[in-house]
Amino acid sequence: MNESVGSRPVDLLNAAKGKTVLVELKNGHSLTGKLVAFDMHVNLTLEDTEEKKDDQTLRKLGSIFVRGDMIILISPTV
Amino acid sequence: MNESVGSRPVDLLNAAKGKTVLVELKNGHSLTGKLVAFDMHVNLTLEDTEEKKDDQTLRKLGSIFVRGDMIILISPTV
Amino acid sequence: MNESVGSRPVDLLNAAKGKTVLVELKNGHSLTGKLVAFDMHVNLTLEDTEEKKDDQTLRKLGSIFVRGDMIILISPTV
Amino acid sequence: MNESVGSRPVDLLNAAKGKTVLVELKNGHSLTGKLVAFDMHVNLTLEDTEEKKDDQTLRKLGSIFVRGDMIILISPTV
Amino acid sequence: MNESVGSRPVDLLNAAKGKTVLVELKNGHSLTGKLVAFDMHVNLTLEDTEEKKDDQTLRKLGSIFVRGDMIILISPTV
Amino acid sequence: MNESVGSRPVDLLNAAKGKTVLVELKNGHSLTGKLVAFDMHVNLTLEDTEEKKDDQTLRKLGSIFVRGDMIILISPTV
Amino acid sequence: MNESVGSRPVDLLNAAKGKTVLVELKNGHSLTGKLVAFDMHVNLTLEDTEEKKDDQTLRKLGSIFVRGDMIILISPTV
Repeated sequence: MNESVGSRPVDLLNAAKGKTVLVELKNGHSLTGKLVAFDMHVNLTLEDTEEKKDDQTLRKLGSIFVRGDMIILISPTV
Repeated sequence: MNESVGSRPVDLLNAAKGKTVLVELKNGHSLTGKLVAFDMHVNLTLEDTEEKKDDQTLRKLGSIFVRGDMIILISPTV
Repeated sequence: MNESVGSRPVDLLNAAKGKTVLVELKNGHSLTGKLVAFDMHVNLTLEDTEEKKDDQTLRKLGSIFVRGDMIILISPTV
Repeated sequence: MNESVGSRPVDLLNAAKGKTVLVELKNGHSLTGKLVAFDMHVNLTLEDTEEKKDDQTLRKLGSIFVRGDMIILISPTV
Repeated sequence: MNESVGSRPVDLLNAAKGKTVLVELKNGHSLTGKLVAFDMHVNLTLEDTEEKKDDQTLRKLGSIFVRGDMIILISPTV
Repeated sequence: MNESVGSRPVDLLNAAKGKTVLVELKNGHSLTGKLVAFDMHVNLTLEDTEEKKDDQTLRKLGSIFVRGDMIILISPTV
Repeated sequence: MNESVGSRPVDLLNAAKGKTVLVELKNGHSLTGKLVAFDMHVNLTLEDTEEKKDDQTLRKLGSIFVRGDMIILISPTV
């Protein structure tokens, strides 16, 4: 695929490292936390994570590993 | 597969870079935003994104990373 | 697999390029439009697309990219 | 896997080329038509296809491409 | 993975060739028939097949090709 | 991934060979039987298998092949 | 993908070995147990495992193998 250099989807994730992101999951829940790392499967680690549903905090989860195949979208602009 | 040069599905996505696209998701929601980048899994990054359901804006999401396996279709002709 | 030359499923798609096709999707919707291109994942681009459900037109979508993993069947004989 | 030569599942499909087959789909519909071609993903092309549900013909589809991942089973003995 | 020689799951399927097997499918149906062949995706061909639901025969299907990804389990000890 | 030698998930399965295991399936059923073999897809063969739902035995299945993609978890400590 | 060395999602799992973790599963159940091992598919082995739903213990499972494709998230900070 003909993307120009410097214009890949992972650029957004690299720029978001160390910042708070919103992660929408396929089970209808969402997570907010600081993005620590990601890999080629979009597996993530987050810190200071909160799990939410319909904008209500369900619980605090601290540091977590999230499987990439559960993720719909990631937004660094919370 | 015998596609002629210049006739691949990604041509449409390359031509849509920098333009507003509609993205239909498998969870029944849709996204509109400016297409910034995509990769071979059809993972996308969008800017100035709005999430909608049944033509009603649910929220504004700014810049986002969307996992390709959640996408039904992408239309640059909004 | 022992298919003879000239007898592959993609032959039907190659012959349908530039013609109107019906695309049945896994979400119960269907698309009709002119087949522009396809790739090895059966990702498609269509032009002059209409999205339908139960034979009723839901909306016109113009040019679109369709993810192959959402497709049930493609019929060039509309 | 230790199959002997001449004893592979695709042998049945090769023998069925040019004959009418029944194709059960994961959405509860079935297709009957003449098997024209198949590939390693069990993508199929059929001719003179009829789509059925609970033994009732829903519509005639002519020549179609069917994505292999929608298929439950194929029976040449209709 | 450290399986010893002669102790692989496919050994059971090889030993079952030519015998009647029960095949449980992910759609809640089951098949009984003579196992003719299988491949590395656990695609199967069966002969003299009967399709059942809740121990009731739905229909006789003769020779069929079954896609491996629809299979829950295979039991040669019917 | 940086696992130390001798600390892999399959070690548990290797140690369980010849012993009775509980296998939870994605369709809500569970199986108990003697683990005979497994492969890299976590396909299993079991002997003297019982299929259960909510702790009630549904039926005895003898020797079976189980597709790995239907498995949630395997517990050798029944 | 441009992750710096020492900043990969699996670092969190490596650091959690020998500690109690919470594992959320796609079927709505959760597991708590001591993380013994994991592999590149995020298949896990846990010891002293409890299976829970809505914070209620359903049963104790001892040592188990968990298939990675059933996992939503893993939290070492229970």
